Amino acid sequence: MCLCDCRGCAEIYWEGGEERQNQKHPFRICCCFVLCCRPPKLREISWLLFVFFSSDIEISRAQSPKAVDVLAKEIGLLTDEIEIYGQTKAKVRLSLLERLKDQPDGKYVLVAGITPTPLGEGKSTVTIGLVQALTAHLDINSFACLRQPSQGPTFGVKGGAAGGGYAQVIPMEEFNLHLTGDIHAITAANNLLAAAIDARILHENTQSDKALYNRLVPVVNGVRGFSAIQLARLRRLGINKSDPGTLTEEEVSKFARLDIDPSTITWQRVVDTNDRFLRKITVGQANTEKGFIRQAQFDIAVASEIMAILALTTSLQDMKERLGKMVVANDKKGEPVTAEDLGVTGALAVLMKDAIKPTLMQTLEGTPVFVHAGPFANIAHGNSSVLADKIALKLVGETGFVVTEAGFGADIGMEKFFNIKCRASGLVPSVVVLVATVRALKMHGGGPNVRFYLMYLTISINFYLNAQNLQLVADGCCNLQKQIQIAQLFGVPVVVALNVFKTDSVAEVDLVCKIAKQSGAFDAVPCNHWSAGGRGAVKLAQAVEKAARQKNSFKYLYSLELPIVEKIRIIAQKVYGAEDIELSLAAQTQIDRYTRQGFGNLPICMAKTHLSLSHQPERKGVPTGFILPISDVRASIGAGFIYPLVGTMSTMPGLPTRPCFYDIDLDPITEQVKGLF
Amino acid sequence: MCLCDCRGCAEIYWEGGEERQNQKHPFRICCCFVLCCRPPKLREISWLLFVFFSSDIEISRAQSPKAVDVLAKEIGLLTDEIEIYGQTKAKVRLSLLERLKDQPDGKYVLVAGITPTPLGEGKSTVTIGLVQALTAHLDINSFACLRQPSQGPTFGVKGGAAGGGYAQVIPMEEFNLHLTGDIHAITAANNLLAAAIDARILHENTQSDKALYNRLVPVVNGVRGFSAIQLARLRRLGINKSDPGTLTEEEVSKFARLDIDPSTITWQRVVDTNDRFLRKITVGQANTEKGFIRQAQFDIAVASEIMAILALTTSLQDMKERLGKMVVANDKKGEPVTAEDLGVTGALAVLMKDAIKPTLMQTLEGTPVFVHAGPFANIAHGNSSVLADKIALKLVGETGFVVTEAGFGADIGMEKFFNIKCRASGLVPSVVVLVATVRALKMHGGGPNVRFYLMYLTISINFYLNAQNLQLVADGCCNLQKQIQIAQLFGVPVVVALNVFKTDSVAEVDLVCKIAKQSGAFDAVPCNHWSAGGRGAVKLAQAVEKAARQKNSFKYLYSLELPIVEKIRIIAQKVYGAEDIELSLAAQTQIDRYTRQGFGNLPICMAKTHLSLSHQPERKGVPTGFILPISDVRASIGAGFIYPLVGTMSTMPGLPTRPCFYDIDLDPITEQVKGLF
Repeated sequence: MCLCDCRGCAEIYWEGGEERQNQKHPFRICCCFVLCCRPPKLREISWLLFVFFSSDIEISRAQSPKAVDVLAKEIGLLTDEIEIYGQTKAKVRLSLLERLKDQPDGKYVLVAGITPTPLGEGKSTVTIGLVQALTAHLDINSFACLRQPSQGPTFGVKGGAAGGGYAQVIPMEEFNLHLTGDIHAITAANNLLAAAIDARILHENTQSDKALYNRLVPVVNGVRGFSAIQLARLRRLGINKSDPGTLTEEEVSKFARLDIDPSTITWQRVVDTNDRFLRKITVGQANTEKGFIRQAQFDIAVASEIMAILALTTSLQDMKERLGKMVVANDKKGEPVTAEDLGVTGALAVLMKDAIKPTLMQTLEGTPVFVHAGPFANIAHGNSSVLADKIALKLVGETGFVVTEAGFGADIGMEKFFNIKCRASGLVPSVVVLVATVRALKMHGGGPNVRFYLMYLTISINFYLNAQNLQLVADGCCNLQKQIQIAQLFGVPVVVALNVFKTDSVAEVDLVCKIAKQSGAFDAVPCNHWSAGGRGAVKLAQAVEKAARQKNSFKYLYSLELPIVEKIRIIAQKVYGAEDIELSLAAQTQIDRYTRQGFGNLPICMAKTHLSLSHQPERKGVPTGFILPISDVRASIGAGFIYPLVGTMSTMPGLPTRPCFYDIDLDPITEQVKGLF
Repeated sequence: MCLCDCRGCAEIYWEGGEERQNQKHPFRICCCFVLCCRPPKLREISWLLFVFFSSDIEISRAQSPKAVDVLAKEIGLLTDEIEIYGQTKAKVRLSLLERLKDQPDGKYVLVAGITPTPLGEGKSTVTIGLVQALTAHLDINSFACLRQPSQGPTFGVKGGAAGGGYAQVIPMEEFNLHLTGDIHAITAANNLLAAAIDARILHENTQSDKALYNRLVPVVNGVRGFSAIQLARLRRLGINKSDPGTLTEEEVSKFARLDIDPSTITWQRVVDTNDRFLRKITVGQANTEKGFIRQAQFDIAVASEIMAILALTTSLQDMKERLGKMVVANDKKGEPVTAEDLGVTGALAVLMKDAIKPTLMQTLEGTPVFVHAGPFANIAHGNSSVLADKIALKLVGETGFVVTEAGFGADIGMEKFFNIKCRASGLVPSVVVLVATVRALKMHGGGPNVRFYLMYLTISINFYLNAQNLQLVADGCCNLQKQIQIAQLFGVPVVVALNVFKTDSVAEVDLVCKIAKQSGAFDAVPCNHWSAGGRGAVKLAQAVEKAARQKNSFKYLYSLELPIVEKIRIIAQKVYGAEDIELSLAAQTQIDRYTRQGFGNLPICMAKTHLSLSHQPERKGVPTGFILPISDVRASIGAGFIYPLVGTMSTMPGLPTRPCFYDIDLDPITEQVKGLF
């Protein structure tokens, strides 16, 4: 892999004083650095052949990734700081943060987008193309931090999420499938809690206080005692006793009964599968459940609050506390019932003990990538993990760059990145890269509304979309301008990255860049990373590097101390451009309840469509004069945010008539995966 | 790890001609072999301290496992034949079977048990104790092949399944939790298929033939074609066309409509959680599913047919074929509908591509262990994987031993091991180790029926069970005798392993061994592996080694050519001792259907209680004169067996009032798991 044969990447860097060297400059520097990080194989590939005839997975497979332990050494990880999973994936231990705590952070770059079409505008490919350009072409340490995709859509409509073309994380099948099992761990933890809730309701409803207490605190080999988590509950109840025999009848009842009101259960079961028939179900219909049936639902695994917690947590201790604080329902007095009350905190932490470690992978050009957490971008905050960003910022060193991505458009993903994720991490972003496409701008300018069926383009629509139309583009730039202004509300410089398609005309590209700069962007550059890899994003990398040197005046949009309603109104007016908000009765009731329960000081996580700045997906461009309706308000107390629902949010995708899986296959001889995209 | 400091285990063995040496004798032999495989740490532990005061997890943690890559080298694996998962687990590639195909197999030992109490009689600890004795104490190559436990019971009632005391697989928390994700992969594959069934029914019922066909075979970028799996379906339908435009209306309808009869769906969703409220549910109640609701259920993940396939498959190609053959329902004409018909075979294989590789771990004394597959022992065959056994038999070499375990009592687990697993693998077992306990024998002799609540023993019952009672023991040995006779039906020598508890009297132990030998056992020996590790199972190891040298006349109990009913009757009469069988109408109808559908030549997998030789759990000892009622008959066509239901089988455990998770916790500083047992 290392052309000059100095084996620098594997050895030289490791001679003597390793630790000190790491702290100065974790990334390995040797005479063949660029080559090390850009294995020559790709260069031998005929562009023509690939750009026109090959699929993402074929490109991914044409490149042989370096062994992950070699990559780990290149970026300055010690042997006992990684846990290898096969040849191309490794989990990184959190102990690293302690070792590098005195190391200054690198520059922190967020990739966001304009209001997208349902096909997406290529934020992930820009993120990957940018780090490929920085490290493999400009010789600047960089790290990409990405979300782990849900497996559901991989077999449904969307396909994979490893980037595309020559800007990909490899091996893309590993990235898109089980990875290192984090989502499976979340599913297991989420569903253990769900099972505990219903089982507890059943047992409480079929036993006397005494029977319940005797089972909860049994005599084991002649001895009777409370478990640690039961003692903690006693203390919360103000019962300062540790001998089970000494509780009064009233105390026994208080301790043994959670008294959950089934109608208030907000905790749902999850699967990592697009299973539309689980959107609304009735559970408990077997005789063994004695008639305690109720209506429930399954969400897709990544919609679990535990995923949001994984993305926002800062340590094992913090994660355990957040897991315990999760509110799953109210009791009959209207008080919150938590995972801790159900005695399951420790078990959840045990199930999540490995998932908390970020997974190290690499791009097609050998740049390091962390894949960690992937919460929903509507009912959750849609950003990858705080821990991965923190570790990467230490590893790249003061002059290096960490590039991370926010889901949906900047009005949602970026706003949540600043107000929720940065608040949780305390990190200060240096630059926002705003991704736009001519296709989407044409839509905002009044062009046809691109839908999924356009993945199967017919000649005519294709022609309409691809024909040069400067007026449509110019009109559509209003959305780009608005998103730039939103970023500026937070005091962070913006670089616009125009993700160029081969059908875009030079005039269209120039026009977008011109308008972007007039609209206040620090710079605006066309990118060809999809067809040319890092080489196609060098201009972007240079612009980002320059922007990062700007004076930074980052600030949050609102203070946590404000009432919930005020915080919602600020986001609606300043970010979405709404005239005002309108609360349903349900929403108002919930806000009052959360405020009374002491959750009023949490940040806001708006659950709104990403297809428009407003709540109406069909309103493109920059809608004005609308009142944002808040139909309901929910809370993820463990994750630490209140989420108002703007309209109804589907938390379970479905399978279409012809799902992706029709094309997915495994060659039993070569063991190669086919048909993933 | 290697006391003599020759580092032999890591290096010497690898000097030159590695491959040839491997083929001759995969296991490493060096001057300190025994010490290598029995790290000294354990010897430094004070017995008293541990036997009386410590939990399984404390013992497990007190031992430091050797790095799995070192273990892999010791047993002769090449670097590119393993995929490391952290420090203590590795997946082994199937390519090994090709490399070692000319290597003769070692001896194949099955550990089975008498009719157990609900607490189990220690088959797993005997399995582990036996290999510890063979390798660490008698210097004979050996391998234990175990089932991966379901995570559900780990947090429910049962706790872990890594063995116990000084006969454990370590680290036990890794063994008992996610391991290398095989069960998660099975869950994902199982549920993708389930989602595909309901979604397909919905789409077929809401679209015309033409619309359905146009969506199934869309125009992509102006081109229209069938995917490979669609072409295969066309061929099955006798339509030899490849141009979508040329199908007649009738052919279009035949191709596009699976016409699934919802009332015949046998494919259920799964979770790896004890979630009793999912035993019977109604799905499809959201408006988006347009009223196509139906009753369904979730099973625990290990009950999935895909788990049974993983346990019986012999290669990637074979697994893919089995996955495609799985029958999920009948169409309205009564013909079987398969996963292949739904177009999902390739996707299932992709999801299972890593799960097919056995996971390498080690015992407390450093002996190698394969953990792979763990199908239910009632609705499935309850044995670990064929692939793990095959690989292990090559690795131990001609003079070595592979010890594997069958679930439940010998009447169920062993019978299925011989008639189903050995048929699938073609392997010939050398010895059966039959595990018994004085506690269980007393129960069979008329003592109290041990139940789960006895895990919380009160003094009195404790006293009753533990007091010497030679008459009870002598009477109870009838069950031991019967199980010995069952093993002899298959022509395999039996060694009885009496799993000794500290409360058993010498007289009781001697009596059991005496009766066992009189009953035809090749030998019968007391074992103390729980308290003394391998050292406590040396006598057993010697007996097994001697028995394996006996002439072997292994034969199956029935021919596959016999009618289904005949095969069921043979098992009921010869194995269970029933007078005859009695088929319900439903059972008879199913048998006729399966026979008509061409599935009549599959082996039989009885789904019967393990708590009695009969169908009535309360009938201990050796029940006679009973008619075995077959309430229903089902089939796992992909796994390759018909399973008659004797009474109702629960495929979803529940959580008790006080689940294990109350004691399970994670120390956020040391990252150590507490409370697993």
